[in-house]
Amino acid sequence: MKLASYRHGGRALFGAVVDDTVVDLTDVSGHQTLASFLGSPEWADRDALVAEGSATPLSDITWLPVIPQPEKIVCSVRNYMDHHQEALASGLNRELSDFPPIFLRVWRSQVAHEAPIVRPNASESLDWEGELAVIIGEGGRDIPVESAFDHVAGYACYNDASVREFQFHAKQIAAGKNFESTGGFGPWMVTSDQIAPGQNLKLETRLNGEVVQSGDTGQMIFDIPALINYASTVFTLAPGDVILTGTPSGVGFSRKPPVFMKPGDIVEVEIEAVGVLRNPVEQQA
Amino acid sequence: MKLASYRHGGRALFGAVVDDTVVDLTDVSGHQTLASFLGSPEWADRDALVAEGSATPLSDITWLPVIPQPEKIVCSVRNYMDHHQEALASGLNRELSDFPPIFLRVWRSQVAHEAPIVRPNASESLDWEGELAVIIGEGGRDIPVESAFDHVAGYACYNDASVREFQFHAKQIAAGKNFESTGGFGPWMVTSDQIAPGQNLKLETRLNGEVVQSGDTGQMIFDIPALINYASTVFTLAPGDVILTGTPSGVGFSRKPPVFMKPGDIVEVEIEAVGVLRNPVEQQA
Repeated sequence: MKLASYRHGGRALFGAVVDDTVVDLTDVSGHQTLASFLGSPEWADRDALVAEGSATPLSDITWLPVIPQPEKIVCSVRNYMDHHQEALASGLNRELSDFPPIFLRVWRSQVAHEAPIVRPNASESLDWEGELAVIIGEGGRDIPVESAFDHVAGYACYNDASVREFQFHAKQIAAGKNFESTGGFGPWMVTSDQIAPGQNLKLETRLNGEVVQSGDTGQMIFDIPALINYASTVFTLAPGDVILTGTPSGVGFSRKPPVFMKPGDIVEVEIEAVGVLRNPVEQQA
Repeated sequence: MKLASYRHGGRALFGAVVDDTVVDLTDVSGHQTLASFLGSPEWADRDALVAEGSATPLSDITWLPVIPQPEKIVCSVRNYMDHHQEALASGLNRELSDFPPIFLRVWRSQVAHEAPIVRPNASESLDWEGELAVIIGEGGRDIPVESAFDHVAGYACYNDASVREFQFHAKQIAAGKNFESTGGFGPWMVTSDQIAPGQNLKLETRLNGEVVQSGDTGQMIFDIPALINYASTVFTLAPGDVILTGTPSGVGFSRKPPVFMKPGDIVEVEIEAVGVLRNPVEQQA
């Protein structure tokens, strides 16, 4: 099943994408948000609920980020070996850690499918990072590696777009990773029953149709269970929390000369068995 | 005026602390949270609203973090020169940046006044960091330094308690800064009309009554307007957002031998003209 958040008739809703429609689950499930639904008893009845909901053509909705306001967005740093190597080649010296290096995004940095990724006025160094997003269903603390996949509700495409100049202002990269309306997240999540635990998925990022990143989720240095285990050692994971799993090589700042996204560009992140996230790029107003 | 969030009669409320009572402002203001009130038209009427609200003895309430669920908690790294120097002396090489280095906390890492700061089972390296918290009132993006203080609703004591072992797992320190129930925040905020913009405030942290940190907010490397300007370049600041301004020297890991907090300890952060935040330390269940 594909689940999405969207606006229609002046309301923020969520539902199941079926063919070229979305079936509203907000009213029939009794939940106001997809995050709330993911962690609820009604989650088990999702197939039956889809049969009850009313359908709206996708052409009539405005997409929202899959989880518009996750409690937490936990992001991985250099979690693909080839991206680590291109960063080293670009002069960014850093050792691989024995533990997953993480930072946080705020929900305000997110944008929906088809909504513009915004290049800020403060810097032109806006770069792409196609990533697989893991969406937590059942929450928990100190989740063992062995049962980590039981806590995954689904997967989505994410563009962890980064303002490199601010990212490199200091050792802490949070500033460059949190610019408003930079993190593309959508169009939907595919529930975890559709993808085998640890299944290798091809990941591709395209800028104006040209392939700029081409990888495979099997290249992760710390796999999904390791990331869930580590994050849940720090804090309780909650339904709708998002874990970003890192990006493969091919980012713009490692190119010679560097390539950045500019207004008018179209950036897409495609992940096998998940979908295609598409965002135009606009200048900050 | 002192404003606090608290629980009473099974409800999460906020109000004004007057002598040894708190006057409920939740019902009379029509706002559910202090964050919502800070950014509202009713904020200007706060003195009149206090006259309308009903008072409850402080002994009957359970404190909540001043802002229980800030949209964003923006934290400063090494923002006091003496703390930077003690970190260098401890072998943590880092250059001072031309820009304020920031990282993010999640609200789930917060604890209220009098609630236990929790030492996790994963590490015993739980350290204190007494800090002045700035609470945003009117939000905004790209806020100039010159008008930054207009966006400050008030100030509070914060204990940016840190799990040093996890903080040093990687260059990104977010993991060690986000353990559940570590960030003490309270007991109240003092509104900005009580403290002159840029006023130097004495800051003291005590462990079991012994002074372990003693500084002055005038020692900040990046002052409050610089922090607000930088953060608001990245994202829109929202009412109730919290900006932590860094800690002076005297943290536990820089001592020889290092000193960490352990169950049974009492840690206090006192800031002149603001108040005293007090937390016992407990082991994770």
